This record gives sequence, structure tokens and C-alpha cells, in this order.
Amino acid sequence: MKYSIGIDIGGTNTCLGLVTENAEIVYRNEFKTNDFPVLENYLTQLVAKIKDLISHCQEPDNILGIGIGAPNGNFYKGSIELAPNLPFKGIIPIKNMLEMLLLNEGWNLRVTITNDANAAGMGEMIYGNARGIDDFIMITLGTGVGSAIVSNGKMIYGHDGFAGEVGHTVVERNGRECGCGRKGCLETYSSATGIRRTASSLLTSSQRPSILRELKEEEIDGQTICEAARKGDEIALECLDLTAQMLAIGVSNAASVTSPKKVIFSGGLSKAGDLLLVPFKKYFEENLYPVFRGKIEVELSALKENDSAILGAAALTF
Amino acid sequence: MKYSIGIDIGGTNTCLGLVTENAEIVYRNEFKTNDFPVLENYLTQLVAKIKDLISHCQEPDNILGIGIGAPNGNFYKGSIELAPNLPFKGIIPIKNMLEMLLLNEGWNLRVTITNDANAAGMGEMIYGNARGIDDFIMITLGTGVGSAIVSNGKMIYGHDGFAGEVGHTVVERNGRECGCGRKGCLETYSSATGIRRTASSLLTSSQRPSILRELKEEEIDGQTICEAARKGDEIALECLDLTAQMLAIGVSNAASVTSPKKVIFSGGLSKAGDLLLVPFKKYFEENLYPVFRGKIEVELSALKENDSAILGAAALTF
Repeated sequence: MKYSIGIDIGGTNTCLGLVTENAEIVYRNEFKTNDFPVLENYLTQLVAKIKDLISHCQEPDNILGIGIGAPNGNFYKGSIELAPNLPFKGIIPIKNMLEMLLLNEGWNLRVTITNDANAAGMGEMIYGNARGIDDFIMITLGTGVGSAIVSNGKMIYGHDGFAGEVGHTVVERNGRECGCGRKGCLETYSSATGIRRTASSLLTSSQRPSILRELKEEEIDGQTICEAARKGDEIALECLDLTAQMLAIGVSNAASVTSPKKVIFSGGLSKAGDLLLVPFKKYFEENLYPVFRGKIEVELSALKENDSAILGAAALTF
Repeated sequence: MKYSIGIDIGGTNTCLGLVTENAEIVYRNEFKTNDFPVLENYLTQLVAKIKDLISHCQEPDNILGIGIGAPNGNFYKGSIELAPNLPFKGIIPIKNMLEMLLLNEGWNLRVTITNDANAAGMGEMIYGNARGIDDFIMITLGTGVGSAIVSNGKMIYGHDGFAGEVGHTVVERNGRECGCGRKGCLETYSSATGIRRTASSLLTSSQRPSILRELKEEEIDGQTICEAARKGDEIALECLDLTAQMLAIGVSNAASVTSPKKVIFSGGLSKAGDLLLVPFKKYFEENLYPVFRGKIEVELSALKENDSAILGAAALTF
């Protein structure tokens, strides 16, 4: 049996999986990305977790390599560059750094990196809801909003390897300030971070009662907002409505560019399920250029949480 | 020598060219699209113009076929569907209709159709500034704003053949009403029609002097606005500035999706040249997601006016 290690580096968590060639995740571990804001410490922790994975592999010599999905991960250059949602800034040649650190530990493993959303898209394309589909858009709703665009059966990397940044398309001119330094990016509204900003803004600007007012500010997140919404909380429902509305503008704009057959959502905030999907579908159809209406399926990833990214990253190795 | 007939159907003009296999346009004619608002009459006129082209071909038996670029032209279905800038509405199976009309005249010619901007993109890819470039965006600034997106060396048609509608991405929420029935589409600002709307709005909302005030409303168009701008007319310069600003939002959003190496402009309004390109480049860099800044070349088509579309349409046949 051949194995690969798939790693999903997110703004919040770093998730690792030992993956078989049959796409089974036989062992996994994870840690908080932000617990290691200094790059050297982060890499030390990452190597420790990789060694933990290797130690749980029955045939460690059959591990073919390591695949990483990371925000602004560059497939061509093996680097992470200017990622707004990661603590380490600048251009990080993570492929070379990690390969060297592992070599120092006696492990000669090839590291391949791609954008986190591209990894998730790859996972969907090979194992998930996009099997057999030549044109689709995968949107990951995590700390940020990531995306992978597949056209003509191929992942669009663009000329520099950074294509697929629907999260950083502007949906509101002069809108909310974004971590990337601009204003009105989709991810300032429709990510886990975005919905918190919406909640905070709605709670401040009105006196209406809300379950969310009973929570500490740091307890308000995608999950607690969804719980409140399920109880009919008006402000929580408005949060999800605005999230869906902005998401619909961004995704329908991207759909005008590539005309996908399917849009697939994954990531923490996608666990909102119908609370998000029902308003999204309504706004999406309204916002679509008429020629595309009624043609584009909208689905949640059928793969388990984070698994599309881990499986897609691992697939880079196979 | 082999020949092909290339046709560029635009909201304003329909331009035909007899094209050699060496991409030389040896004879051309054209007519006003809007002079024939009834489809049957339009097709009669089109057939007459095609016969005129054939009569000017030294070896008419060597004409391989007809390629058409048209707004919302569908490569897969041979139809024009729901084109907001054409007088004939609905779904028009133009390939079959035209082939039959020509057959009735004794000409058995295969008709291939694609989106007008895709035809222009094809022309740029084979004969123009995009030769050898795998990832580029072609924007046609005509009656509307068309676009062709090439990724991984292939034209993106999308699952239904209608991909590449950057002109119908929303750049201003609840902005200007668009012919497609929605609001704030790029083409309501940055097309020949859009810049007229801008001029009209600026002239109405202020009392400032302007050369444009000396013109009749129907004389104000891309050309007269550019002439006024070259003389330093403040309102004309503002028109071009807003056109560039909105164009930058739409194109930088599309660039976030596909990460092109080059953006190429063609079409009537692109004749504004530096009056449009200089402010566009400034706003474009400002609006780009930082990772793309300084990487994307912006150019005008080096092919003569309309020729990219005629040549690209003709290339469908070769």
C-alpha cells in the first residue's frame, strides 16, 4: 500500500492526514496555526506532527511524499506568498524549508504545495461531488474565502500560479477593509471572520433583542450565529442573509467569467447548511446574468470537514 | 489559396471580411445592424453581403466556410441567445438559418458561430498580441463590453458555451440599469453606451462649461468625448476617468479569478488610447489583489479595428 501525507494549512487550524492510495485517511492530527506566529516555531511544530503521522504508518517507507494546501500557496514556486490570513508574512519558500528540515530528521520526502482552495477543488474533482465535471467552482468558507476554478477539465492556476481568488474580488466598492489592504473584498463579508463582523455591526447599530447579546464577543462565530438562527433569532438570520447575499454577488460574477456547471461549498461556515444555501440560491439566481439562470447546480461538499483539502493535497503526491 | 468568410456581428455594425488562409482580409463590407431590426430582414441583408463577398473572391470554390462572432453566440449550439445589445430577441438558431438560406442560393457553406469577444480573443491568440500566451483576458469595448478568457492555452467556453461575460459582472451594487435586466454591470459604465450615459449624467448634474454642451445629444459618443478630452475638457476627462475606474474594478475581479499574463483591449472605445489606458492602468494596479500587482501587462490590440473578431471568426473555419 502506498501512502501520502496531506496537509491543509488554514488561518485557524493546520490539519494533517495520512492518506492511502485509496483515498482513506487512516490517521490524522491537527494544531492551531495561530499558536505559532513565528515561522520557525510553526515549521518545528509542523515537522513534529509529520513525524507523528509517519510513526503511525505501518509502512513508512511507502510514504511517497507530502502535499500541502495553503492560502496563497504557489504550485509553481513551492512558496506561500503574501497570505493575508496567516501570521507569517512575505514570501515563504515552504517547500524547500520543509524538505530540508525533514531531511535533517532522516526523511527524504518531496513536498508539493498548492493553494488551499485548489487542494480542496482537487479533492472534489477526484473524490467528491465534482467527479466527471469539466467546469466547476469550489468555494471554501473558512477564516477567509478561498476558491478553485476548474475549466475544460483543468485547474486554473493562471500565469503565476495564483489564480482562483474569488474571495478577493470586490463585491462592494469602498466596502469593508480587507486584510489584503483593499476594500470590499468578498471575504470581508462571507467568511467566518466576515459573518462575525456582520454580527458585531448589526448588534451595535440596533437595540433589537438577540440571543447573541448574551454571548461574549469572542463566543460569537459562525457556529453560535447558526445556533441562534435555528432558534429564529432575527439578527442571526440577518447575518446569514447578508453573508449569502454578498457571496451570491461574488460567485455570480465569477460564474459570468467561467460558466460552471456546479458551485460547491466547503469549509467551516458551509456547515450552516440550508441556513446559508437557501438564501444563497435565491440571491445567486437573481444576480446571475440571465443566460446562466437555472443552469448552475449549487451543492455542499459531500466529503467530510477539511477532507477535500487533505485528500486533494495528498493527491498532488500520488 | 483557401478562403474563409469572417463576420463580426456587433450591436452597432455587422462587419464581414473575405479572409485568406494567410490571415489577409482581401475584401470587406459592412452594414448597420440596427437598420434591420426584424430578424428575417437582417438575414436577407447578411446573405446579400455574403454573396457580395463571394463575388469578389477569385476562387469561390475555395471558400471553406463562414465563421461568425456575435454577442451571446454559442459555439456549441450554433445559436445567438438573449443578446441584450441586438435588436432580435430570444434564441436564434442562426447557424441553421443561415446555412439554409445560403443553400437556397446554391452555396453549401458550413457556418460556425462563437461569442464576438471569443472570436476577437481567437484572433489575438492566433494573429495578434496574445500569440504564445497561455493565460490572457481580451476585452472588447464596443456597444457593450465583451470578453474572452484564455486559460491553460484554451478558450474558456464554460459548460454551456457562454463563459467570458466580464461585461456582465456587477461592479456597482444597485448601480445603473443594464439591458440584461440587472443593475451595475460593467457594460453600463465602460462601453460606448456607458460612456454616453456618464457624459449625460455629468452634464446634467453640473453647470460646468464643456465643449460637449455645444453638441446635440446624439452627437455625444466615445469619439467626440475623446476629442473634447484631448482639448482638456474637464467633463470629458471625467467621463474617461469613470470609464477607466469601473473597467479596472471589473477586469481586476476577473484577473483574481484567472490570473492572466496580459489584458488586451479592442473595440471602438479602445481607440481612446492613452486617454483610457493611462487612468485604467493606475486604477487597475490599485484594485488588483496585491499578489497580482506589477505582473499583468495591459495593451491595446495591435490588429486593425474589428480585424481581431473577423480574423478570429474566420479562423473557426480554417
